[in-house]
Amino acid sequence: MNRDRIRALLEQVKSGEIESEDALEALARLPFSDIEDARVDTHRALRAGIPEVIYAPGKTPEQIVDIVAVLRGAQQDVLVTRVESDVASRVLGAASGGAYDALGRTLWFGPAEVPIVGRGRIAVISAGTADLPVATEAASVARRLGNEIDLLTDVGVAGIHRLLAEGDLLRSARVLIVVAGMEGALPSVVGGMVDKPVIAVPTSVGYGAAFGGIAALLGMLTSCASNVTVVNIDNGFGAAYVATLINRL
Amino acid sequence: MNRDRIRALLEQVKSGEIESEDALEALARLPFSDIEDARVDTHRALRAGIPEVIYAPGKTPEQIVDIVAVLRGAQQDVLVTRVESDVASRVLGAASGGAYDALGRTLWFGPAEVPIVGRGRIAVISAGTADLPVATEAASVARRLGNEIDLLTDVGVAGIHRLLAEGDLLRSARVLIVVAGMEGALPSVVGGMVDKPVIAVPTSVGYGAAFGGIAALLGMLTSCASNVTVVNIDNGFGAAYVATLINRL
Amino acid sequence: MNRDRIRALLEQVKSGEIESEDALEALARLPFSDIEDARVDTHRALRAGIPEVIYAPGKTPEQIVDIVAVLRGAQQDVLVTRVESDVASRVLGAASGGAYDALGRTLWFGPAEVPIVGRGRIAVISAGTADLPVATEAASVARRLGNEIDLLTDVGVAGIHRLLAEGDLLRSARVLIVVAGMEGALPSVVGGMVDKPVIAVPTSVGYGAAFGGIAALLGMLTSCASNVTVVNIDNGFGAAYVATLINRL
Amino acid sequence: MNRDRIRALLEQVKSGEIESEDALEALARLPFSDIEDARVDTHRALRAGIPEVIYAPGKTPEQIVDIVAVLRGAQQDVLVTRVESDVASRVLGAASGGAYDALGRTLWFGPAEVPIVGRGRIAVISAGTADLPVATEAASVARRLGNEIDLLTDVGVAGIHRLLAEGDLLRSARVLIVVAGMEGALPSVVGGMVDKPVIAVPTSVGYGAAFGGIAALLGMLTSCASNVTVVNIDNGFGAAYVATLINRL
Amino acid sequence: MNRDRIRALLEQVKSGEIESEDALEALARLPFSDIEDARVDTHRALRAGIPEVIYAPGKTPEQIVDIVAVLRGAQQDVLVTRVESDVASRVLGAASGGAYDALGRTLWFGPAEVPIVGRGRIAVISAGTADLPVATEAASVARRLGNEIDLLTDVGVAGIHRLLAEGDLLRSARVLIVVAGMEGALPSVVGGMVDKPVIAVPTSVGYGAAFGGIAALLGMLTSCASNVTVVNIDNGFGAAYVATLINRL
Amino acid sequence: MNRDRIRALLEQVKSGEIESEDALEALARLPFSDIEDARVDTHRALRAGIPEVIYAPGKTPEQIVDIVAVLRGAQQDVLVTRVESDVASRVLGAASGGAYDALGRTLWFGPAEVPIVGRGRIAVISAGTADLPVATEAASVARRLGNEIDLLTDVGVAGIHRLLAEGDLLRSARVLIVVAGMEGALPSVVGGMVDKPVIAVPTSVGYGAAFGGIAALLGMLTSCASNVTVVNIDNGFGAAYVATLINRL
Amino acid sequence: MNRDRIRALLEQVKSGEIESEDALEALARLPFSDIEDARVDTHRALRAGIPEVIYAPGKTPEQIVDIVAVLRGAQQDVLVTRVESDVASRVLGAASGGAYDALGRTLWFGPAEVPIVGRGRIAVISAGTADLPVATEAASVARRLGNEIDLLTDVGVAGIHRLLAEGDLLRSARVLIVVAGMEGALPSVVGGMVDKPVIAVPTSVGYGAAFGGIAALLGMLTSCASNVTVVNIDNGFGAAYVATLINRL
Amino acid sequence: MNRDRIRALLEQVKSGEIESEDALEALARLPFSDIEDARVDTHRALRAGIPEVIYAPGKTPEQIVDIVAVLRGAQQDVLVTRVESDVASRVLGAASGGAYDALGRTLWFGPAEVPIVGRGRIAVISAGTADLPVATEAASVARRLGNEIDLLTDVGVAGIHRLLAEGDLLRSARVLIVVAGMEGALPSVVGGMVDKPVIAVPTSVGYGAAFGGIAALLGMLTSCASNVTVVNIDNGFGAAYVATLINRL
Repeated sequence: MNRDRIRALLEQVKSGEIESEDALEALARLPFSDIEDARVDTHRALRAGIPEVIYAPGKTPEQIVDIVAVLRGAQQDVLVTRVESDVASRVLGAASGGAYDALGRTLWFGPAEVPIVGRGRIAVISAGTADLPVATEAASVARRLGNEIDLLTDVGVAGIHRLLAEGDLLRSARVLIVVAGMEGALPSVVGGMVDKPVIAVPTSVGYGAAFGGIAALLGMLTSCASNVTVVNIDNGFGAAYVATLINRL
Repeated sequence: MNRDRIRALLEQVKSGEIESEDALEALARLPFSDIEDARVDTHRALRAGIPEVIYAPGKTPEQIVDIVAVLRGAQQDVLVTRVESDVASRVLGAASGGAYDALGRTLWFGPAEVPIVGRGRIAVISAGTADLPVATEAASVARRLGNEIDLLTDVGVAGIHRLLAEGDLLRSARVLIVVAGMEGALPSVVGGMVDKPVIAVPTSVGYGAAFGGIAALLGMLTSCASNVTVVNIDNGFGAAYVATLINRL
Repeated sequence: MNRDRIRALLEQVKSGEIESEDALEALARLPFSDIEDARVDTHRALRAGIPEVIYAPGKTPEQIVDIVAVLRGAQQDVLVTRVESDVASRVLGAASGGAYDALGRTLWFGPAEVPIVGRGRIAVISAGTADLPVATEAASVARRLGNEIDLLTDVGVAGIHRLLAEGDLLRSARVLIVVAGMEGALPSVVGGMVDKPVIAVPTSVGYGAAFGGIAALLGMLTSCASNVTVVNIDNGFGAAYVATLINRL
Repeated sequence: MNRDRIRALLEQVKSGEIESEDALEALARLPFSDIEDARVDTHRALRAGIPEVIYAPGKTPEQIVDIVAVLRGAQQDVLVTRVESDVASRVLGAASGGAYDALGRTLWFGPAEVPIVGRGRIAVISAGTADLPVATEAASVARRLGNEIDLLTDVGVAGIHRLLAEGDLLRSARVLIVVAGMEGALPSVVGGMVDKPVIAVPTSVGYGAAFGGIAALLGMLTSCASNVTVVNIDNGFGAAYVATLINRL
Repeated sequence: MNRDRIRALLEQVKSGEIESEDALEALARLPFSDIEDARVDTHRALRAGIPEVIYAPGKTPEQIVDIVAVLRGAQQDVLVTRVESDVASRVLGAASGGAYDALGRTLWFGPAEVPIVGRGRIAVISAGTADLPVATEAASVARRLGNEIDLLTDVGVAGIHRLLAEGDLLRSARVLIVVAGMEGALPSVVGGMVDKPVIAVPTSVGYGAAFGGIAALLGMLTSCASNVTVVNIDNGFGAAYVATLINRL
Repeated sequence: MNRDRIRALLEQVKSGEIESEDALEALARLPFSDIEDARVDTHRALRAGIPEVIYAPGKTPEQIVDIVAVLRGAQQDVLVTRVESDVASRVLGAASGGAYDALGRTLWFGPAEVPIVGRGRIAVISAGTADLPVATEAASVARRLGNEIDLLTDVGVAGIHRLLAEGDLLRSARVLIVVAGMEGALPSVVGGMVDKPVIAVPTSVGYGAAFGGIAALLGMLTSCASNVTVVNIDNGFGAAYVATLINRL
Repeated sequence: MNRDRIRALLEQVKSGEIESEDALEALARLPFSDIEDARVDTHRALRAGIPEVIYAPGKTPEQIVDIVAVLRGAQQDVLVTRVESDVASRVLGAASGGAYDALGRTLWFGPAEVPIVGRGRIAVISAGTADLPVATEAASVARRLGNEIDLLTDVGVAGIHRLLAEGDLLRSARVLIVVAGMEGALPSVVGGMVDKPVIAVPTSVGYGAAFGGIAALLGMLTSCASNVTVVNIDNGFGAAYVATLINRL
Repeated sequence: MNRDRIRALLEQVKSGEIESEDALEALARLPFSDIEDARVDTHRALRAGIPEVIYAPGKTPEQIVDIVAVLRGAQQDVLVTRVESDVASRVLGAASGGAYDALGRTLWFGPAEVPIVGRGRIAVISAGTADLPVATEAASVARRLGNEIDLLTDVGVAGIHRLLAEGDLLRSARVLIVVAGMEGALPSVVGGMVDKPVIAVPTSVGYGAAFGGIAALLGMLTSCASNVTVVNIDNGFGAAYVATLINRL
């Protein structure tokens, strides 16, 4: 199904030729829609009950605009991640109704206030100022996917009293996302303070032996806390996605 | 010492059977019991509601026996992981009441049939025959921690029809543990088939460019499926532990 | 100078049009034509029966123009790979008759429609939008080398039904080229679906633990499918070249 | 279908209860046969027209014997690779009719003389004495899969005249397998001498900066010869398998 | 100066031919003494005021005995590190007066009770049971070099309350040595609790992504605590040596 | 807020100038001052007796200005490290009273002449011209933290006589910081010439197999001199910080 | 000795106050000359009998101009390596008499025609067009250091006949420098053709698994030819320097 | 030419059927001799004027005995390297006239006193006791190839005065081989003391961050001394071979 097909379908809805319900059905039945460069899977949202998410790097603003159009045409909410500000400007210029979070680099097409469907709170904790973009991406995505969020920043392990002072907040979360660069020790300490799943996100913050996030990644994989799992370097989105799935259980 | 033990203690205080001061003293002695080489934390079971787990490598059979004795003396169940068969023999010879799972290399001191407290099923899926020890560790640990388990083995991605035939089993799980060595592609495929959290366990199985699990680890970290998080190479225990926490939510 | 040119020369000898000595001299001059910075091997086309291919990076537009001129002067078709658009503009400005494929970054000097000499079809399959440049390079090169091509894109392993839906296309190919970044799992799945040679091309697409293509490379080298061989990261050309050789057998 | 089921089926054939053709049909229809530790795919041989291949490491002799029994019961030829001599002895003691190639570490259950079905010759070339086990594995597997083989050893690049002296042998092959450790330069040189596909096998032979085959692997992946693809370190079997597929085209 | 020369010198002292003071002078003036396989520097102890230290790996028991003899002949105390128990037995059998610490793998030739010359206390802190050999080496060496030691073990970051409970001990140290394997996060936490120099020792304890100590090493090098410096993996001796130098300032 | 400031506060309590409650309030507000992106710890200076240090990368000029303002408002001296010249210009334009060291890339807000509180001299030694920025950072930080400094540059190991000529300077230092890129051999040689602690700083200077400082880092970690500890690549600040702590003992 | 001191000395020579011979003596006795950022060793040329060589990266044009001035003032020839064209322009604008080789990126201050002092010929051989800058650096440096040079380019191993055709040239060299990127196989082949020392220079040319020269470096270090030694990646200068020393023996 | 052929030839010489000169001619004309597992190149000694060298690892004692027999039968001297003591015993038991150097692990079949053909002295310098096997291999090989040797051991850079005391010995060498493990700094220091070619041999001696010789290898490749080239880790033979070629110039 190419764009012409969708356009025709939407025109038919507009002109009353077919009922919205029938159009919806038609769209829902599509295994995937062919557009020029990417098969957009309009089923995933139906399957997983969450908005479609688009990873921006490697796509041109035009490609993003096209994909957004198809999905919005199918009445879906859309979240675009890793959108640099110049790309965001160009997409927002061509696709109406989007909201851009510059720090978390996400672009959102959907209701301003997403209803809460998660059963508990997700805590997002980060160590340093430089980890904020990734922590913000995680928090922003988790919020758009229908979760209540607690964001706690600048609580590194070298000033352990800052972290301990927030023990109640940590223990009240149903799932925790811990974002850290450099030596990535924060998830181990947080993991020892709670008995809930902790999703660790290494960041590429640091220099020298940080090796673009390898030190943090290895530190998190070898954490002495048993309740820690790990996602890819800088993958705030992935952490928020899994936390969302867990929080809906 | 499990929560029942503490509850009993508190009930005794309430009923006047023992003095508050004595109960306090008893509790205060708990945080950890000093034995020669390791402070055994008898509180963790209290905190997390799960048995104490001991990682065997780097400990002598004598140290393991000592730790088991302290914990059993405090009425706690104990699970020992990564126990080679010769170590198991020596520990079982000195500490009564243990059960050894030779394939999963776990040693269990506790009731033969652990009551199910997890809310759903945990599926443990593995790719090849050589991944069985790690998959079995995960399944065995998860069972001992009170979960119902589905174990599905030998369903590699190069014979994709085998995996697809088990779609119902996969979709009925509340959490999934996917164990794979070599290229570690299985979690991506499984992740695309379900909308539940998938915990990926890379194994050190393979040769050459498998580099002792690095290929599988990198593959899982960079999975194109958004619902995948990763634990350390061969860490079947860690996957089972986190899956347990999620399954109790 | 292609085989027809040599055959013509030999016919001329046979018919007495030119002297053996002169023909010998002409042939002797062939092995390579010295130009300033590169010995252009005008024999390879003769040997392999395929156009001369030039790898652009590290060469100035002027050098490329010079090499193209020598080869075109010897009546050979020329394919230039990895040509960035600014370089392409400069080369096309100086050397007439070229066609530029911007996505696949190839520059072609030869007939618009190359005759099909391959005995079957070559399928080029890629996982994500960002892999398109490498997949397109492979498809474009394979087409210029005389093969019929099926290009199948955006069929990642996390949406396995998309791939399965194309089973007939995959099975009808004589050779398959599978292009994938991130965890590089696609060749394993495709390899399990066909009993033909699969050439895997890891791409540098991805971030974090993708390590510029290392994750995909290792994943492909350790593939559990036995019919997979691997070329260098992003080497769409190399895959197409080998697929061409196989398809002529 | 477990072993009892197969045994019963075979007994029925023996006793005349069912016809061989029907039993064959029954076996052919089986998607896979469950035995204790591995689902044996009895279809692959039907699909690919080649014997079933078992990779021995990580399997006990008992497991290998079981799998061999199932497959032989289904009238299939079986090839076991990477079989150390002590394992081979134990398997041969329990499963009759096998032939062991100690240098190539393969175990064969099938006709002593496999009919040639490959359309041309496969040349297997290796650099040093220490590469012989891998080269022999490749040659042995390729022969068992129905190909005519030329084995050429000890022709390293530092004594280039030895290789050049074998130019005719190289050029007469339809596919070439080149096995080399250390710097792994041999495939580049061979690749430049022929216009056929070359499958390069890096070996773990070497010391120091050879890094267990990494030097050879990287050298082969970055080969300046365009007709080279690569398989995993020491994967003589994989090279032979792909060469076989190509040689049947 | 060979062994004969030293033996003669010592004989002369014994026989009264020369005064002890003169012999001492003679020995002190020696830049180094040639023995068969190693030039033993009898000056370093004079220069640094600490016993001579011998690193055992790569030396035969015989070589160790010889070096000990020369140094003891020159009235020096000798500390041998990384001595496996079988080597220790053989050395102790040939060289009298040594004391072996089996856990820390050190062999000591000198007074049973070394006088305290360090100005404050050195705290040696370790995370897990498996780090004990390295922590013990550090403590044992530091004690032999004349320091008062506090050894604190099994205080990992995942049970942060254990560590915090020892705050006074940590703060009373003049220098701290922190030994940790796996993710190596302990030095960061300790570093944040004190304002004294912290010497971090990564250990090779761990599996999988611990990579034999690389994870811990990278974690320590990128510590967010500014008062941390690092020594080589498992180098308990080096940490103790530097701590000694600092403690004498 | 430095210790004098706190002492004054306490004196005011003692003299009755302010109420205990008010003083308590003032102190209670101290642990950290919340500003938008970073919790500024105004206690560290109190704890460690040294100025607050801010690491600039990953912070915007605006964030740096904000943090400086909070700290200066609390009467603290502030040192900002790794400040590129354009950032420095913007910060200096918004925050008065700063001094910029362009070579060492530090920005200082405090008295022009810091009183000497270190007990001895710190020698900063570097190998090549290209190591100067890191060496200067170390020297500049150490001076701002109250130490007397000897800076010795361009004394590489390949011209060993240059280094030996400075033996007196080296031996007169209480702590030594040795900065080197490429093979990083200088700390070993310096370490052998003195019996004081040597802090080695690998730099990212070099090309090829220097791998951005890895060669130097590994060389320093494996130094044959026992008095060497190591900090992260290019971490001149960390070396100066630890040297300061040691020099105050 | 600072620049003023040298200037004064030169003025004295000019004015006749001191004899040239005495000034020369004075200069020769200087261990090194202090200038602002680098101690220039005016002795090396005397010791080694070759011009002073300056490595440009990490130095400003001004620093280079200063160093050149000091050395020229001491009547020394100067060679500057790795000079980018913009730096060259600025240096040539401030320091007269220099000659720039843009391809080899060297800057020469000395006689246009350096007398030949090497005893034989040095052959510089390179594989691909992209290796030319490094090969040219090697050739250019070797020529400036007084050697006769044969430069042979574009003779890769995949077209082995090109190399074999130059056997006489190779065998007539006294030392050989072989420059290659990608798989770096050329030194092995050349090494097998001659019985003279071969200095291999890996280049950072290549992509993907070439890893910036690592593949070539490892290939050269593990060469099966025994007469090959290796220098750092892209270190054409180092190869030429060692070749010069050998050629003067 | 197989062993029978050689044996027959030698019998003919023995019986006077053919003249020695003719037999020599026959042997000299052989491009290589086929024996079972290796083509022995009897020409290399003629070409290079040095004995044939056999690398033992990966060869059985029987294979070594066979190769030695062929070469001795052709009147060639033979040097076998990396021969462990048990292999040496078995070879010496079967092949008469060999001499084994246990420390350097070489086996020599040739005259006890090889005539000196090298034009100067080769200095072999090593840092630590543990480097002795590699240093001894280098010295032993160089001596067997006809060079005068100075062996200088235990002169590490951390005790720089030991090395400086041997300046005359270093400067009197025509070529230098420097063997070092750990940080591998010795070649840089030695390189700065002489103006002759220095061949650096990294050893696998060390632990932790030495990474089996990688630290030393990188250190040597990035040496700041320009007269250093490098061979593979532990390749004492290769260093001696190249030093021999240089010393014959």
